Amino acid sequence: MHVHHEQLEVRTKGKGLYEITDEVESKIEKCGIRNGAVTVFVQHTSCSIVIMENADRTARRDLEEFFNRLVPEDADYFTHGSEGSDDMPSHIRMVLTRTSETVPIADGKMQLGTWQGIFIFEHRRAPHRRKIFVTIIGL
Amino acid sequence: MHVHHEQLEVRTKGKGLYEITDEVESKIEKCGIRNGAVTVFVQHTSCSIVIMENADRTARRDLEEFFNRLVPEDADYFTHGSEGSDDMPSHIRMVLTRTSETVPIADGKMQLGTWQGIFIFEHRRAPHRRKIFVTIIGL
Amino acid sequence: MHVHHEQLEVRTKGKGLYEITDEVESKIEKCGIRNGAVTVFVQHTSCSIVIMENADRTARRDLEEFFNRLVPEDADYFTHGSEGSDDMPSHIRMVLTRTSETVPIADGKMQLGTWQGIFIFEHRRAPHRRKIFVTIIGL
Repeated sequence: MHVHHEQLEVRTKGKGLYEITDEVESKIEKCGIRNGAVTVFVQHTSCSIVIMENADRTARRDLEEFFNRLVPEDADYFTHGSEGSDDMPSHIRMVLTRTSETVPIADGKMQLGTWQGIFIFEHRRAPHRRKIFVTIIGL
Repeated sequence: MHVHHEQLEVRTKGKGLYEITDEVESKIEKCGIRNGAVTVFVQHTSCSIVIMENADRTARRDLEEFFNRLVPEDADYFTHGSEGSDDMPSHIRMVLTRTSETVPIADGKMQLGTWQGIFIFEHRRAPHRRKIFVTIIGL
Repeated sequence: MHVHHEQLEVRTKGKGLYEITDEVESKIEKCGIRNGAVTVFVQHTSCSIVIMENADRTARRDLEEFFNRLVPEDADYFTHGSEGSDDMPSHIRMVLTRTSETVPIADGKMQLGTWQGIFIFEHRRAPHRRKIFVTIIGL
């Protein structure tokens, strides 16, 4: 049984989804673990990790628009806003989604469905460097 | 230390919750792992895995009604709808909930609370066959 | 490779966030596992586990206010309410957030980002004793 850690850095350019499936897959191939599970964990509270359909860009655009309406930047009851009007909404969007995903690995491959991809869901408007900690446990 | 994979298929008949606790529990018993954790991962982007109260059907009905109102099928800004009006809402409902759950196993049993059950949360109106990948890691 | 289980109990005093990062960290230190992952699992369906920013109380207050508005206690379509008007909203808030979190462990420490803390998110108004099952897998 082995534990293998990797770190990824993703440069985001504003709100929306950024796919990291291939980066995670290549870390799994490199480490040689054939059966187990990978945990993909984002080390921030203003972006998320989500699994989302990876075929059609319109689905990602509609998702972004839904979240912009669900968590508007100008809610009059927000008191936390030292970093700007997208600060508090970014924390709420993160809590409504996920900080990590755990995906089974069999025969050296993540067992994602046909249309599933792993994405960073960026909630801030400005560009950011996002750190992702990847832990692979298995044999 | 062992890694054990299993696959489940669940036939859903429209939106709502379908319990799979017993099916997961029986896979754990069969594999003989007594201590560790199980990851229950659904290989689709239009349904979810959730842990929900399993005692009272009214709670599940109210949950479904809440999500129908939170993510209406007729939102005028949706552009992704090639598979029907419940297509885009199904992806949003999935992102708002979960693709997987990881549950501790001790003494051969999942450590669920008294009222917790594991459910497929189906977001499409038509019947579907849903594939769930179950990975048990432990000893 | 080792599997180590621990149980925590947290006394909550109404809706809101209660940090448990230090309690989880101390269980990891005690068990001696240096590399792996920890799953923090709450055994209830009316509260959640979330990772949230731990620096500023105003962020937690705004988060609570957002959820109070998103899932109002007086929705006229709720039928499940045997335990009071905060009963059904508590289940919905739990489904919209998380029952567990899995955090990588490297060099004996959880790999949380600078501002990340692990919290119980209580959804009931009355005080509760909340049981958390913590499973550490690694070597």
